[in-house]
Amino acid sequence: MDIEAANQLAVQRMLEAQPVLVGVAKAVDVIPGMRRDLVLHAGPPISWEDMSGPLRGAVVGALLYEGLAQDEEEAIHMASSGRVRFEPCHDHATVGPMAGVTTASMPVYVVENRTHGNRAYSNFNEGYGRVLRYGAYDAQVLHRLRHLNERVAPAIGRALQRMGGLDLKALIARQLTMGDEGHNRNVAGSSLFARALAPHLVRCDLDPDILHDTLRYLADNDLAVLNPVMAACKATADAAHGIEGSTVVTCMARNGTEFGIRVSGLGSRWFTAPAPLPKGLYFPGFREEDANPDIGDSTITETVGIGAFAMAAAPAIVRFVGGTPQEALAATLEMYEITLAENPAFAIPALDFRGTPTGIDVRKVVRTGITPRINTGIAHRQPGVGQIGAGLVRPPVEPFRQAVRALAEQLSR
Amino acid sequence: MDIEAANQLAVQRMLEAQPVLVGVAKAVDVIPGMRRDLVLHAGPPISWEDMSGPLRGAVVGALLYEGLAQDEEEAIHMASSGRVRFEPCHDHATVGPMAGVTTASMPVYVVENRTHGNRAYSNFNEGYGRVLRYGAYDAQVLHRLRHLNERVAPAIGRALQRMGGLDLKALIARQLTMGDEGHNRNVAGSSLFARALAPHLVRCDLDPDILHDTLRYLADNDLAVLNPVMAACKATADAAHGIEGSTVVTCMARNGTEFGIRVSGLGSRWFTAPAPLPKGLYFPGFREEDANPDIGDSTITETVGIGAFAMAAAPAIVRFVGGTPQEALAATLEMYEITLAENPAFAIPALDFRGTPTGIDVRKVVRTGITPRINTGIAHRQPGVGQIGAGLVRPPVEPFRQAVRALAEQLSR
Repeated sequence: MDIEAANQLAVQRMLEAQPVLVGVAKAVDVIPGMRRDLVLHAGPPISWEDMSGPLRGAVVGALLYEGLAQDEEEAIHMASSGRVRFEPCHDHATVGPMAGVTTASMPVYVVENRTHGNRAYSNFNEGYGRVLRYGAYDAQVLHRLRHLNERVAPAIGRALQRMGGLDLKALIARQLTMGDEGHNRNVAGSSLFARALAPHLVRCDLDPDILHDTLRYLADNDLAVLNPVMAACKATADAAHGIEGSTVVTCMARNGTEFGIRVSGLGSRWFTAPAPLPKGLYFPGFREEDANPDIGDSTITETVGIGAFAMAAAPAIVRFVGGTPQEALAATLEMYEITLAENPAFAIPALDFRGTPTGIDVRKVVRTGITPRINTGIAHRQPGVGQIGAGLVRPPVEPFRQAVRALAEQLSR
Repeated sequence: MDIEAANQLAVQRMLEAQPVLVGVAKAVDVIPGMRRDLVLHAGPPISWEDMSGPLRGAVVGALLYEGLAQDEEEAIHMASSGRVRFEPCHDHATVGPMAGVTTASMPVYVVENRTHGNRAYSNFNEGYGRVLRYGAYDAQVLHRLRHLNERVAPAIGRALQRMGGLDLKALIARQLTMGDEGHNRNVAGSSLFARALAPHLVRCDLDPDILHDTLRYLADNDLAVLNPVMAACKATADAAHGIEGSTVVTCMARNGTEFGIRVSGLGSRWFTAPAPLPKGLYFPGFREEDANPDIGDSTITETVGIGAFAMAAAPAIVRFVGGTPQEALAATLEMYEITLAENPAFAIPALDFRGTPTGIDVRKVVRTGITPRINTGIAHRQPGVGQIGAGLVRPPVEPFRQAVRALAEQLSR
């Protein structure tokens, strides 16, 4: 088993992936293994007992949304008694921001990697404010979610079908020249997304109110494209997974309690440690004591070299996550220390069009002690309060150490 | 007459201007002094005899478009025999990119400076390829222009009316955090423009084909917002004009033969010199010998501190105009040497959110020998070929010297 050759192949797969947003479908119809009594969530596996506030809130909300429970009490009983199962989104080719809770009837974006043929999925972004992904589940939250899922999502699906799919690799490449890093800042990408969809939406014979509401959603939500971008990153990372001997990280994710990684050559095994608290800027009225430990699958962006790894492309983001434009440049430069390649498709203008640092090598992380940088939204620790800030986080080094040890054991067999 | 106080007032007016895109109207209905036999053009005053190829072509096209002439021969005869008059757009609160030719029946964007009450106007951007503003005037060009002016422009006007106007100062501020400099690069601004208009367009009871074509125009044309941005800059610059004793430049423009400036304290007088040839990158098949001298009113962007003055905000533009991202940073830094203020509303992330260099002082230009930097499209010298490249240009220093001398004479009176 040649580690270098394995890693070269893994990275090549990441670089060659061609994620295309091909449509929208109901989760149960497309996500492998999806069932009505299954709740997918962000991060590594977790039991109800160990879930943090926002994830519990999102689970309760999803059970109410699905009609599996009639009220909060019943939902909590179901969740805690094993009558529904919890599995990571990542085990089902799916990713979701923050709580990431995805259930059978929810619509998901379908992304196809045209190079390797694999698909990945992500739910719809609810925007800012009180939303399910931050653990809110009151009647208004569920009403908004239903409106998004039942009216807006199908309309976007029809427009995508009419346009024959949207090249997300090209969109990401373009947004990186427009001040986005693709994780916490997606205003350029979301604007390009809205602009591309609009002429098709008006040709889909939609109900006029649905048409309007869909264009209003796309106009107002600077995060609209985050979920498709995450699915594009998942389709890219999955293509690099499962290569024997490879030390490349193919997944980093947090469930609000634990941070976990998976490594290309180590199968479906998770390596975990307690999730850290983000450092960042808090919205007025909130502070660090209110923050939940880090949560969400959105670290799939960093896993394939955008997000915090592309901070140099997004100097304006420091007004949102803290730091200075110089530190944003330094963040990207540091990530070249723990990655194996530069992605020529994702060129950062401010670094003389150098490609984004791509393909985290667990050995490099352990050797240098440099852990990946992650941009993140900060959730309130109580369910339903919502986002209270945004910032930067470094995951613990332990999971990377565990992975190196596991690889060493595998090699010595 | 206190020059410093006069300049402070001029610059304050530039910084305090609040340009809002309030609607679309027919040129003859809104542009002061517009008449059916009047052809407005870019740059300082010029006679038919002295016009370069692209400007002549655009004039012929406009006379055909207006039905004032039936064919090219008749149009040339009209233009050369004094049966139509030529006046600068700038003398009529109007700006137009490249040839800038604007005639009575054309629709124009109406921008109102909410702080000072003055208005400015600009025609509609035809996009890339064979277009009137580069001097093309065959049947297909005029057909496309008619489609734009008669179908798309009124639709955009109705949407703007419905939304109660669009804050262009906020849009420019935002696009400068998204990799645009607002002159040669407007993809972010145009995307924001399209995204903001779309939900209103679908509520305007438009013919479905017109609705579709309008959204298609906005989706495909990365320059769509250039013309409203130019009108916003003109409304800003005009607010700073006419202050006795002020040495601030309130207009820089080129007609393809001459480059000219106007200065706040020197009334409507133009100071001119031969227009230079741009240095830049040429599209395949073209070279410097094909280039027309610099042309267009789009230098109104640099006049109020964006465009080349904000190059540091747009590192990706060097792939289009030449140079390196480092040179883009240096371009902005150099412009602080010849300007009087920094615009806090237009913060450049890569320069630690320093405001754009604003308010060119003719004395500083003459004293330092540093002429303003200008980003520009390059027109073919023959009418109708179109854009053949993009690049950078430095205007001659003579007009600035002439202005300083004129101010000295005024002071000694």
